[in-house]
Amino acid sequence: MTRPNMHYADLRDSYLFRRIAQKIAAYEEDHPGVHLYRMGIGDVSLPLCDAVIRALHKAVDDQANATRFHGYMPECGAPFLREAIAAHYVSRGVSLDVDEVFVSSGASDELGDILDLFDARSSAMVIEPAYPAYVDANVMAGRAIIHVPTCEEDGFLPRPSDDLQANVIYLCSPNNPTGAVFGRKRLQDWVDFANRHGSVILFDAAYEAFIEDEELPHSIFELEGARTCAIEICSLSKTAGFTGTRLGYTVIPTELRRCGMSLHDMWVRNRTTKTNGVSYVIQRGGAAVFTPEGQRQIHQNISVYKRNARVLMDALDKVGVWYCGGRNAPYLWLRCPDGLGSWEFFDRLLNEIQVVGTPGEGFGSCGEGYFRLSTFGNPHDTIEAAQRLADGSVFR
Amino acid sequence: MTRPNMHYADLRDSYLFRRIAQKIAAYEEDHPGVHLYRMGIGDVSLPLCDAVIRALHKAVDDQANATRFHGYMPECGAPFLREAIAAHYVSRGVSLDVDEVFVSSGASDELGDILDLFDARSSAMVIEPAYPAYVDANVMAGRAIIHVPTCEEDGFLPRPSDDLQANVIYLCSPNNPTGAVFGRKRLQDWVDFANRHGSVILFDAAYEAFIEDEELPHSIFELEGARTCAIEICSLSKTAGFTGTRLGYTVIPTELRRCGMSLHDMWVRNRTTKTNGVSYVIQRGGAAVFTPEGQRQIHQNISVYKRNARVLMDALDKVGVWYCGGRNAPYLWLRCPDGLGSWEFFDRLLNEIQVVGTPGEGFGSCGEGYFRLSTFGNPHDTIEAAQRLADGSVFR
Repeated sequence: MTRPNMHYADLRDSYLFRRIAQKIAAYEEDHPGVHLYRMGIGDVSLPLCDAVIRALHKAVDDQANATRFHGYMPECGAPFLREAIAAHYVSRGVSLDVDEVFVSSGASDELGDILDLFDARSSAMVIEPAYPAYVDANVMAGRAIIHVPTCEEDGFLPRPSDDLQANVIYLCSPNNPTGAVFGRKRLQDWVDFANRHGSVILFDAAYEAFIEDEELPHSIFELEGARTCAIEICSLSKTAGFTGTRLGYTVIPTELRRCGMSLHDMWVRNRTTKTNGVSYVIQRGGAAVFTPEGQRQIHQNISVYKRNARVLMDALDKVGVWYCGGRNAPYLWLRCPDGLGSWEFFDRLLNEIQVVGTPGEGFGSCGEGYFRLSTFGNPHDTIEAAQRLADGSVFR
Repeated sequence: MTRPNMHYADLRDSYLFRRIAQKIAAYEEDHPGVHLYRMGIGDVSLPLCDAVIRALHKAVDDQANATRFHGYMPECGAPFLREAIAAHYVSRGVSLDVDEVFVSSGASDELGDILDLFDARSSAMVIEPAYPAYVDANVMAGRAIIHVPTCEEDGFLPRPSDDLQANVIYLCSPNNPTGAVFGRKRLQDWVDFANRHGSVILFDAAYEAFIEDEELPHSIFELEGARTCAIEICSLSKTAGFTGTRLGYTVIPTELRRCGMSLHDMWVRNRTTKTNGVSYVIQRGGAAVFTPEGQRQIHQNISVYKRNARVLMDALDKVGVWYCGGRNAPYLWLRCPDGLGSWEFFDRLLNEIQVVGTPGEGFGSCGEGYFRLSTFGNPHDTIEAAQRLADGSVFR
């Protein structure tokens, strides 16, 4: 009898977004026609920028033409895109070889696949609150998970502690859900910790394009020693609105070795065995993001989300609520009033001011009592939601 | 110290296509300007059909428009595409629930990912000659591999043998590289065997669109009992020229259970955890394949490859060489003359008639002494290659 992967039986029911959907459906049934202000979504709302659209159309035309048609793509990424990404890193002072850049279908796909590089008995450290898939992907592989809770006092950015040893360490900065961003010094502490212990950091930089403060690192490879201990996983989902178009990239330095094996070379072998590369059309669209015109246009879109953030921050400032995030990140993470549970606060916002957010408890137990607001919603709804929050009644 | 997945050290060097590339490069350096007739490629040469191109352009326009823009797609596939695929099965007499169809980025991606459903200690049966990634993906997971050799006498289509028990069984029909296709009766033997032993068949149907004979099954789900023992993995790569555009689909019946676990439900959980779905643009292109117009156009392209097959078959018939495949498959599998090794025959074809094929030994040791010709090349080159083969000198 074929034995399935019984670790799937250890998965907790993934109820966060389903429970939110159920509550919204129940509300809408009871209140037909009432508009909801959706500040819960992690999805973008602005269409792709013009440079990307033109590159996609041109690539589709290539696929219609016998002499310009592209069949199988190189499994690790098209040279034109790997070069564009490597050049983008150079423009920030990070020097990479082109073959250290791997094109992916997106960060979520890659965060699941990349675990194949590690022994099934290795442990994974997840700093919580966190994106739920970090935990679930490791549960599926039967890995021991070390949950590291964070709190308001450490700004949701913990220091490494030598009594906590883990093989694989997830760091997400700017963070989903808290919006907290690692400064150079604290991130250097983690790089040094990983090098000291032989750990490997999976650095999720999906929100790096939202960093405004000059001194904050966009890439872990801006830090000394990262090339021997880190893998960086990036995405165009939030950077360029590719959530439904799908493209990301991963950087694995050639110096990253463990037990005599090159993780870079292992990943080349993984990709050449288990994939046939990413769609030519989509890679052409992605390459347009890294042109000067593409960069200008995506930052115009990002500035719309930034204005949403400013509007929500002003509202929270007005009512004096504690929060972090918003400035260098697309999420705001606020403390629920009166020691209210995060699901209770969800219900209050939904029922009293028709604003939908995301209960912090869904990102790990230390998220209880906190609440996530997204800045990816449409600007009109964000302004109205902010006014309803600024009225203050839901915080009293 | 983080332990990498040491099973990667057990991988054999993947030298088949690299060695071919090296030999071609050496030949071209010694013979500048000499044209090579490439009958080795498994890639398509015709551009995407018009119905797909129009659907792709329209979908790109959707991504440019605020009200028609698509963000995150459902992880298991867009309803419009799952419905189109399920309807396509119905048109062949196979009834499927829409949610038994999963959209993927292609068969090679899925064949790697799907192994996550099975216990790491389960064994995998690979009928050889075979696509090398079947073996490599299982070596990476540390699985025991049962190599089942086939031969001319059984038509490269073995019967199951009850003394060979395996948990996961790969069946590829029409076969790459041999072009052999399972008839109903022998495929039913495998379905019955899998149900008897509790095995799970991974049925790779990437080449089903090349089947011409009415009585041959396109889908394993045309067979009785397959819903309790099989997963079918399909691709638009060869069906519609999507090798570089990337789209496939996988069927997992809800009845497929092992040890109390539903493999269907496990795959839903896998996809929702480890992916964010396939590109909206590409899914729209894929849906166009299943329209009446799309079906008509892709079969026009397939008929070009069919004519290539006919031309090559006529040449081999003329010189009286044993081969299989070609009629219901895009590959021909021929016996090398005079007990020549498959790499020796490769060298002879390259040096004497400038035709490039694929040595059978690269698909497993029982492929030694055989040679694969692809029908995906351009028609002019195929005609010239066939004439050079029909001349007969390389077979004497």
